[in-house]
Amino acid sequence: MTTDFGLRDHFVGVMKGVILGICREAEIIDISHEVQPFSIAQGAFLVAEACRFFPPGTIHIVVVDPGVGTARRPILVQARDQYFVGPDNGVLAMAYTGVPHVARHITAQDYFLQPLSRTFHGRDIFAPLAARLAMGLGPDEVGPEIEDVFRPAFDAPQRLSRRTWCGTVLHTDHFGNLITNFHSREFGDLQLLPFELAIGTEHLDNFALTYAEIQPRSLALMLGSSGYYDVAANQGSAAKILGCGPGTPCELTVG
Amino acid sequence: MTTDFGLRDHFVGVMKGVILGICREAEIIDISHEVQPFSIAQGAFLVAEACRFFPPGTIHIVVVDPGVGTARRPILVQARDQYFVGPDNGVLAMAYTGVPHVARHITAQDYFLQPLSRTFHGRDIFAPLAARLAMGLGPDEVGPEIEDVFRPAFDAPQRLSRRTWCGTVLHTDHFGNLITNFHSREFGDLQLLPFELAIGTEHLDNFALTYAEIQPRSLALMLGSSGYYDVAANQGSAAKILGCGPGTPCELTVG
Amino acid sequence: MTTDFGLRDHFVGVMKGVILGICREAEIIDISHEVQPFSIAQGAFLVAEACRFFPPGTIHIVVVDPGVGTARRPILVQARDQYFVGPDNGVLAMAYTGVPHVARHITAQDYFLQPLSRTFHGRDIFAPLAARLAMGLGPDEVGPEIEDVFRPAFDAPQRLSRRTWCGTVLHTDHFGNLITNFHSREFGDLQLLPFELAIGTEHLDNFALTYAEIQPRSLALMLGSSGYYDVAANQGSAAKILGCGPGTPCELTVG
Repeated sequence: MTTDFGLRDHFVGVMKGVILGICREAEIIDISHEVQPFSIAQGAFLVAEACRFFPPGTIHIVVVDPGVGTARRPILVQARDQYFVGPDNGVLAMAYTGVPHVARHITAQDYFLQPLSRTFHGRDIFAPLAARLAMGLGPDEVGPEIEDVFRPAFDAPQRLSRRTWCGTVLHTDHFGNLITNFHSREFGDLQLLPFELAIGTEHLDNFALTYAEIQPRSLALMLGSSGYYDVAANQGSAAKILGCGPGTPCELTVG
Repeated sequence: MTTDFGLRDHFVGVMKGVILGICREAEIIDISHEVQPFSIAQGAFLVAEACRFFPPGTIHIVVVDPGVGTARRPILVQARDQYFVGPDNGVLAMAYTGVPHVARHITAQDYFLQPLSRTFHGRDIFAPLAARLAMGLGPDEVGPEIEDVFRPAFDAPQRLSRRTWCGTVLHTDHFGNLITNFHSREFGDLQLLPFELAIGTEHLDNFALTYAEIQPRSLALMLGSSGYYDVAANQGSAAKILGCGPGTPCELTVG
Repeated sequence: MTTDFGLRDHFVGVMKGVILGICREAEIIDISHEVQPFSIAQGAFLVAEACRFFPPGTIHIVVVDPGVGTARRPILVQARDQYFVGPDNGVLAMAYTGVPHVARHITAQDYFLQPLSRTFHGRDIFAPLAARLAMGLGPDEVGPEIEDVFRPAFDAPQRLSRRTWCGTVLHTDHFGNLITNFHSREFGDLQLLPFELAIGTEHLDNFALTYAEIQPRSLALMLGSSGYYDVAANQGSAAKILGCGPGTPCELTVG
């Protein structure tokens, strides 16, 4: 489960109660419930990073859903021998980028809790559907395949000019590092190339291999364990220093 | 499990260790451990809201217990085909309001951890007893039925005059909405009636169907998903604007 | 599991995914993920307090690991009919102080995730190894016994003079109480003896049996439920009043 519900309210517990009422054998694991409210990009990043380490058959429930109650579709995606259920707003997109996948519109209302609320589809649609899948429901019983799943902008940086791309901050981690959506797969080894990253009020052109290389309270670009470039501080929070977080735009010029 | 222990300390983990030492097959679900310390009303609200979505046979352990170590009784309540264990201070009361229930004084000291501490009955009484119930212990082996369980004031607003009631804030949710104990079942549809709610330094008389209807940074009354009336803000926290939280009194005048 | 990873990131969830991929039957319990980053003493305290209430066969994974990626060894300790896996930096030490134990250097690289990262041994070494142990891997297959496990200073206060010892704060609990490493087993009953505790800018010489005995906003020494002496405040946080936390030194003079 990955949500922006936090742990103070009963919402996460309620979803687990619904799941266990249908599938008593389910083992329910929390990825994070501290996604910044409505930050689709951050939710997408966390699920994509985490799913690589989960076994086949895992069912991911992802609820970061500012459009709940509107016409946005609930979807099921099969990829990596795993299931992903959530709203069709891009929050699932990074988990299946570059791998074969099949998406379906969840239309099997028989499996929804009734009456269907307008505000809590995590409880009424996604939790019971995930529990049915765990019990062996076939994906073709969930709804029809669709080709036009929503492609979010944070999925890949946008090219602004020959040498410049516009990206975004995907995630602020526990230590305040800012994970951008610039990936070493596409942008190569920025340790070896001249570059400039504009973020907040700063222009960074220095690269560090370890935190210890960074001057205290100053910033540098680093290559994070996920392959994305991070903005990091030594003995401090880059997020606090810059006043940035998930969704902040940034601009990378290379060469 | 619902407690005010927070997640920084080892207390919640210890209770789970005690449970699993007795009942290895238990599936333990957290409702919330972020109840405001000693806020019995908030704990009662969260359990009552959550239990409706849990399957028969669920055993709720609820520990918000400012009177731990005093003469207040530990109790077991059977209601909704579920068990509720906790202190007899009202924290279980909202879960069985309006439904048939049987309450028992937990006196079966053979099942307590020894030596019994004065400060941690969650570990020494409630966790081991819940685990025994999960293993099939009969309720009649727990202790005698009692008729005089504590009835808390937040269970229902108090009538002050013909048109005015005194209520309380039950819960502040993740978004800062204040959930009051005025329920639409008793107070009807406040969208259609003239009303005034006095809370903190404010007097509200406007009703909103959606957050978007509320002026930015101002407040309105809304009907929450639980049937209780909430004080909400648009793009802001009503709790912060008003400086209020669980336990804050409020006064509703209708008509 | 006990870590300093927090719950915002995907790190804890990823470790659980790794465990369940190897041992589907594992029941995974969180002690705390809110250990102050890099506070080995606090992690050691929480594990030592918690493990006494877990059943035989429990496998504790403890990751508070400022030296990850350096030459510090990963170790497995058998004590109390339980397993403890973590870095050899003292974070396991308090769990087996005073009880028979066997320590091993974890060298069985076949069980590590490959490629082994330099920054996330929780995922790559400790989680998969714990899962293998849960599946029945014998300790002698993990690596050779070692005698020279690291002995941390917070394990016991250091004697400065005949009547004075230098200790440290192990933990700040949910209520702001400061748990020191002065234990009643070694220092006797400070309710009956003249004493002075120097911590932060304060010199305390008063003892309280209950919080209610302490003057509001002032401080006193109390005997905590774990047997360690705590610095506590009435209706306030001793940690905030003193500006102290895990790792703060303190000095006790007795008699």
